[in-house]
Amino acid sequence: MRARPSETELIDRIRRAAERPAGREVVLGIGDDCAVYRPRRASGDLVFTTDMLIEDVHFRRESHTAAQVGRKALARGLSDIAAMGAEPRFCLVSLAAGSWTDGRWIDGFYRGLLALARQTGTVLAGGDLARAGKLYCDIVVCGAVPRGSALRRDGARPGDRIYVSGRLGGSALGLAVGKGKAWRRHVALQPRLALGRFLRAKLKATACMDLSDGLSLDLRRLCLASGVRADMQAPPRFPGATLEQALHGGEDYELLFTVRRGTRVPGEFEGLELTRIGEIGRGRPGDVRLEGVPLHPGGYDHFRA
Amino acid sequence: MRARPSETELIDRIRRAAERPAGREVVLGIGDDCAVYRPRRASGDLVFTTDMLIEDVHFRRESHTAAQVGRKALARGLSDIAAMGAEPRFCLVSLAAGSWTDGRWIDGFYRGLLALARQTGTVLAGGDLARAGKLYCDIVVCGAVPRGSALRRDGARPGDRIYVSGRLGGSALGLAVGKGKAWRRHVALQPRLALGRFLRAKLKATACMDLSDGLSLDLRRLCLASGVRADMQAPPRFPGATLEQALHGGEDYELLFTVRRGTRVPGEFEGLELTRIGEIGRGRPGDVRLEGVPLHPGGYDHFRA
Repeated sequence: MRARPSETELIDRIRRAAERPAGREVVLGIGDDCAVYRPRRASGDLVFTTDMLIEDVHFRRESHTAAQVGRKALARGLSDIAAMGAEPRFCLVSLAAGSWTDGRWIDGFYRGLLALARQTGTVLAGGDLARAGKLYCDIVVCGAVPRGSALRRDGARPGDRIYVSGRLGGSALGLAVGKGKAWRRHVALQPRLALGRFLRAKLKATACMDLSDGLSLDLRRLCLASGVRADMQAPPRFPGATLEQALHGGEDYELLFTVRRGTRVPGEFEGLELTRIGEIGRGRPGDVRLEGVPLHPGGYDHFRA
Repeated sequence: MRARPSETELIDRIRRAAERPAGREVVLGIGDDCAVYRPRRASGDLVFTTDMLIEDVHFRRESHTAAQVGRKALARGLSDIAAMGAEPRFCLVSLAAGSWTDGRWIDGFYRGLLALARQTGTVLAGGDLARAGKLYCDIVVCGAVPRGSALRRDGARPGDRIYVSGRLGGSALGLAVGKGKAWRRHVALQPRLALGRFLRAKLKATACMDLSDGLSLDLRRLCLASGVRADMQAPPRFPGATLEQALHGGEDYELLFTVRRGTRVPGEFEGLELTRIGEIGRGRPGDVRLEGVPLHPGGYDHFRA
């Protein structure tokens, strides 16, 4: 065992160690955007995601307002809910306020978070509060979905078409330039909730996930989960973003999804572009090629960074 | 608005700001040990708690093994589940590994956590992983309870008798001496799950919470939630603990509960003492007296510490 395993290796190890007993109400466990829970005798499934937002890892206090941090904390969780095709129900927020935060900052944080919560029908149901040196936030969002219909990562099959929503690399570009449209994209991401429901209910997407760590790494994860490989072309780029940023830049929070060959996918959904970027194939699981050339996953890994 | 509000004031402010819309599935929101969620058409309620465990706030790496930290992270959440009279179903674990942690430490953390998870029937269903300077863990536990039967903080009424389980102050004593039985009590708390179910199903407890921040502060919180006052006597002490430690020491994780006058409470439950320590009265909400003398809440407040 190496002393410094990658994030992916760690998650695999934890999943194996968790070896959950059969026949439980947890329908889908570690490794997807959300866990899926089926309450006894309920008509639907509940999906759960948890997302951390850490000072100097995910944001800097000099460049984000309190309201932007609060909004972002919830938006990241909602993006996972969108990726499952679910509707948000409630959230729990754990906040370890940094030693530099005062009551005004904390009020601003919750103001930003609650504005997005109201906009998306998410109830703030509880949480935990503490103090620490740096600010640390962890959010849990629960969503609801008709029984057995959550969009997972493991349903892509050879022949399926691969799509992304929007244009990629905007968040990485924003982080690099620190201003303008790309910066606003970086700080104020919009979870694709309506699109997720559309993909589940209308297009019957075979797999779906949100792009949080970069297309190259995330597509590889989808392929590994589904036991397939992928051939792709260059994805649509955010204005000004480089190909590098569009392929490997994190925090775009667009949806990556696959549909059966022959599915009619509209060119846009509610003003958001939907672009075909490739095809699922048979072969070594997790193998991703860009215009025929093996694409090294260059996205963000917390344990390799 | 003061720049440094207390934890209790902050929670009140967040609760007011959250102003949840009526008629939702969130039956009980901010302010209790758990939030209560009622899935549509389900026969039971789900309860949720979230608990942070932060290096140098809740533990020190020099004095805890990785397995002890992992076990404690889950045990604190399970203690909240016990306080609702619920049965644990699954947990989600967010771990920001400290810069000093290696793969071996992380494996040990999950080994300790999963041992307690198996022992209590809790499935590890998912989570999040990241790196940060200090170790930070946040855990969510979901439990199930028959519809409408969760034990809340707000049900105590004048005339009800107040009880605690076990003997108090052991964790504070353990922290002070750093060895022996009290230290083992501090590092290896035992969530009172079977007792919680007994209190709900057999004794029909009117209110219940777990003792995490010290009896004086926690009893005050129970009284505030129920709109009542309390008269108490000295609680049973852990061998060697001072009255101060038993009244104000945190992390005992015993259960504090009230029952209707006339309820037959056994002297012990599965080897754990149950001791009557007082009575609920009419009067100024949150007013707690020890042998007739006003008891200042001396427990732990993250925002006053």
